[in-house]
This record gives sequence, structure tokens and C-alpha cells, in this order.
Amino acid sequence: MLNFDRDFKLNNVNGALKLRGEIEKIVDTICQNGYKNLCFLGIGGTLASSYQAHVHMQEYSEIEVFFQSAAEYLTTGNKRITKDTVVVISSVSGSTKEMVEAVEYINKHIGATILAFIDNKDSILTKITTHCISYPLNEQLKFFMVADRFMFNNGEFPEYEDMYHEFDAKLAKALVDVEEESDEFALAFAQKHCEDPIHYFVGAGNQYGATYSYAMCYWEEQHWIRTKSIHSAEFFHGMLEIIDKHTPVTLYIGEDSQRPLSERVARFLPKVCNNYTIIDTKKFSLNGIKEEYRKHISHLVMHAVNNRIDVHMEKINCHPMSIRRYYRQFDY
Amino acid sequence: MLNFDRDFKLNNVNGALKLRGEIEKIVDTICQNGYKNLCFLGIGGTLASSYQAHVHMQEYSEIEVFFQSAAEYLTTGNKRITKDTVVVISSVSGSTKEMVEAVEYINKHIGATILAFIDNKDSILTKITTHCISYPLNEQLKFFMVADRFMFNNGEFPEYEDMYHEFDAKLAKALVDVEEESDEFALAFAQKHCEDPIHYFVGAGNQYGATYSYAMCYWEEQHWIRTKSIHSAEFFHGMLEIIDKHTPVTLYIGEDSQRPLSERVARFLPKVCNNYTIIDTKKFSLNGIKEEYRKHISHLVMHAVNNRIDVHMEKINCHPMSIRRYYRQFDY
Repeated sequence: MLNFDRDFKLNNVNGALKLRGEIEKIVDTICQNGYKNLCFLGIGGTLASSYQAHVHMQEYSEIEVFFQSAAEYLTTGNKRITKDTVVVISSVSGSTKEMVEAVEYINKHIGATILAFIDNKDSILTKITTHCISYPLNEQLKFFMVADRFMFNNGEFPEYEDMYHEFDAKLAKALVDVEEESDEFALAFAQKHCEDPIHYFVGAGNQYGATYSYAMCYWEEQHWIRTKSIHSAEFFHGMLEIIDKHTPVTLYIGEDSQRPLSERVARFLPKVCNNYTIIDTKKFSLNGIKEEYRKHISHLVMHAVNNRIDVHMEKINCHPMSIRRYYRQFDY
Repeated sequence: MLNFDRDFKLNNVNGALKLRGEIEKIVDTICQNGYKNLCFLGIGGTLASSYQAHVHMQEYSEIEVFFQSAAEYLTTGNKRITKDTVVVISSVSGSTKEMVEAVEYINKHIGATILAFIDNKDSILTKITTHCISYPLNEQLKFFMVADRFMFNNGEFPEYEDMYHEFDAKLAKALVDVEEESDEFALAFAQKHCEDPIHYFVGAGNQYGATYSYAMCYWEEQHWIRTKSIHSAEFFHGMLEIIDKHTPVTLYIGEDSQRPLSERVARFLPKVCNNYTIIDTKKFSLNGIKEEYRKHISHLVMHAVNNRIDVHMEKINCHPMSIRRYYRQFDY
């Protein structure tokens, strides 16, 4: 398989799962000391991951939880963020302009607890956050481990121990298997859509953040292909009218509570469009993962499929994903 | 001026402002009885208006306030919505599927207080909400009157009395003047962009909801022109890479706290694009409105400009905005 290191991927996911001991220690201490609310703070791709953690917790938890754009925070503020707030952040570079400024502002003016996942352990953000864990990739898994521990401590996620015990044993292989199972599809998909003038992505639930992020942070930012992403429910309040026979639409269907919202789009599309693709997490085997836990990893399954699309798209379009036209290239 | 009834518009805005007495009575009673939090519940365009009320309150208020998609509520739920929640909704038809089902669910299972603005006074939603006010149009003004009264009662919006006193006297004329001042521009803009294969809209702050809604609920749903809308801050985390010389981009700049985020886009665009338009609310006279209150109506100014673009686009494209291809045309 093209550009695929199975062992690296297995070890990387298993390493992320092993962070759980450290996460539990931090979260348990916070819970013992008391906190008022929980804020996932991000920008771009990390804001999208925040959407995912938020919708996940909304379903199961009475804890006040919200997401916050770092740039909006720096201008509009948010009076719900106080010294008793737990702010959760993630950054690969540890130097994203808006994130650094927001954390500096919080430290100086608010004094909230900041729990950070920073891939680059020598960055500025690792030095100015209350708790910092440095480990590469797996942003969404890290956020969900935090969310699930907060809910568990609040008596709201009784499956916590059993589910993570199972994930420790089976998740890495299940996700790497998805990459293998989807590779042939991903190649054909990339071949078909590599020249699209614009591509539409639709998703809901814990996949919506990933849909938004995949369209914007991968196809637009890294492949330089135009996209629009829309929530499956919002699709019916405008976007449906501009779909025709030729419109390239990809619908992600997960197994979480919002599956019916995406199924509705799946019923609509064939009536008006002849260029749509449905990627349904249900089609993947996920060996060893109990039926009732599949919903909690729908976004990770989709991420695995997208990884394979990216690999093929990068090769077909002769465009290395690491190149940027404008981002961080000049001042604006 | 094409399709423009100045007196109707003046009377319509003034009539909406006169709802304030009724709104105050309802909100004051709720505040006296106590409430836990405030939820703006919507779908499509009304969800977009909810974004606007939310970001407005976030800046000034310690009240817990959030927006909620009705469709997501019906599938994922939201444990922060309890019997002590005040749910604010708006609907023109009073029959939007997701809204009716969400209100029915809340009535049956939660018992929250529902404050509704329903244009059609004979609809199902008028009958099943706790408090219902029926008056046509001005959804955003209605939401902001509610938000501002809640904040005033919480000691957070001291300009309330003075500002609304001024709005009662001057706002309707100021907004209708914007329509007149922008008409020539709107015609030229519609002529230039009526055949765009896709049009990008960018905005922030209390304009972001309007940017999202204008792109999706007007150009896509009513003009059948493809669009993408993006928040000015998020623009720099993906979308910037797909802008080129020919890309049609419209940037809305308001006068609220997030103005700097849109000004950043304004600095970027000329460097890479030769087909952008900037609509800045600062350019409009808004006679009689104090400098410090202009920020609170940036979204209404933009709405007035967009009204004129719509009128001309509808005529040029020979496509009545009331026609739908698919929405409510068949089952899906």
C-alpha cells in the first residue's frame, strides 16, 4: 500500500491510548479541586475537534461544556471563561498565533486551568499551559479521553472502564484495518474527484467537526481543491437547492445519535444527483469493538478512510500536502 | 427604486420595536421567577440568527447562553436544557418540521419555558409555545431585544434604556436609508456576480450568522447560486489557499468587537485576488445613531444591503425568490 507504515500507525495509536494514565491523573485532580465548566478552545482544525468533543459530551453530560474559537475569544471574549474554567487545547506546532495569544491572555487576565496537548514538546505553548502532554497525532482521541474521564467522574459514562480496556486491546488494529479495507475505494475516489472544481462534504454528529476540518484543512489547505462542508441537518435549509446531476457530494454517515440526519441526506441525494459518494462507518469490520462502542469512534473511522484518500490524492495531483501557497508565507 | 416600499419598511421596523413592551413583560416575569440558562433554538436561517444573539451575549453577559440546532437536539439531545431553561425560537411559517418536533419534545419531556416569535399567527407553533409573539419579519431585532433585556435585568447592559429610546426614534429610518444608500452598489454587484459559478462570503462577529444565512438561505435556497460562507478567523485556516485572481469573494465588515478579524481578511485579499468586494457598515451614515451603538446593529445594516442585492439579483436572473426546486416539494 502506498505510503503506509502499519507498524508506525499501530504504535502511534497505542501510544496515544497509553496517555490515559496521565490524563486521568490530571482530570481527577481537577475534579477533586472543583471546576465550574469545560471549554474546548481551538482554531481551524482544532476548533473542529472541539466541535466533536462538544457534541459528544452534550449527549451524555450535565457538565457545562462549550467550544470557543481562539480568535473570537481574543476579540469578543467570553464571560463564561473564569478562573474556575478548565480550558482544553491542542496544537501540532505549539505556535499557532491565535492559540498562543489566547493562552497568554487567559494566563494574564483569567487564571483558568489549561490542559494542553502539544505535539511539539519544545514549543512556546508547552511552557505556558498548566498541564501539557506532548505526543504526536491523535488529537480527537486525546480530546475524547479527557471528555470521557470528566463524564466518568461525574457519574455519566459508566462504560468508561470497559470501553477503554477494549480500546487499549483492539482500537489501534481496528483503525489500521480500516485504512487497509478502504484503500482500494480511496484510490478510485481520488482518481474520480482529483479535478473537481468544487467538492461538497456533508456530515453530522461526531463526524461534523471532521467533515468541516477535512474539507477546509485538508482539501482546501493541503490539496488546494475547493470545497464546501455542511451539517447534514443544515443541508436541507439551503444547500439542497444547488445540487444537480453533476455535483460532487460526499456524505459521511456515522453510527452515533445523529446517524438519522445523515440517512435523510442519503435518501435525498439519489433523487437529484448522479455524482455522490456515501462513506458509511457501518461497512467497516472494527474487529473486537463491541457494537455499542462503535458510535464513539465513528469520527476516527472516517479519519482513517480520509487518510487513504489523502495519500492517493497527493500522488495523483503531484502536489505535496506540506506545501502552502499563502499560510505563514507572508504577513497579513 | 425597484420593488421598494419605503413606508412599509419604516412601519415594519417601528412595529417590531414596539414589541419591546410585550417582550419586557415576558422577560421580566421569567427573571423574577428565576431561570438557569438561555437557549436560542433554531434550524437553517433561525439557527444563524441564534449564532448572532449568542455571540452578542457572550461578550457582555455572565448568563449561560448557547445556541442549539433543533435537528441535533432531536437526535443527540442536550442535557443542559432543563425545565429551568428559557428556550427562544423564531419561525416565519410556524410549521418548520424540526422546530415543531423539538418544541413538542420539550413540552412533553422537559417543560422548559419557550418564548416564540412566529410570523404566521395561525400556525401550530403559536399554539404550543409558552409565550408567543406574532409579528412579521425582523427576526434578529426580536432576538436582540430579548437578549438585551435579559442582560439589562442581570445588570450587564446599562445602555439599554438610552439605546432603545434612540432606536425607537431613529433605527427604522437609519436602516431604510441604508437600503437607499446601497441601491446603486447593489445593482452593480448583482450585475457583476449574477453568473458566478460559486461565490464566497466571509464575515465575523454579529455578522457571521448573517453571512452564513445569506449565503445558504438566500443565494443557495432562493437564487440557486452556489456559495460558501466562512468565518473571517477560520478563513486563514484553509480557505485562503483556494483564493486566486478570479475568485469572487465578498467580505462583510461590521463595527462590533470582531471587526479586526475581518480587517485582517481585507488586508489579505488584495494581495491574491482581483474579484473581491468589501461591504463595510462604517460607510453608512446611520443618522441619529450614536457611535457607540452602531456595533449593535452591524448585522441589521448588512441585512439592509443584502435586501437590495436580492431585489436586483431576482430581476436580473429572472428567477422569483419564492420558487423552490426541492424544499418541501417531495418527501425525503
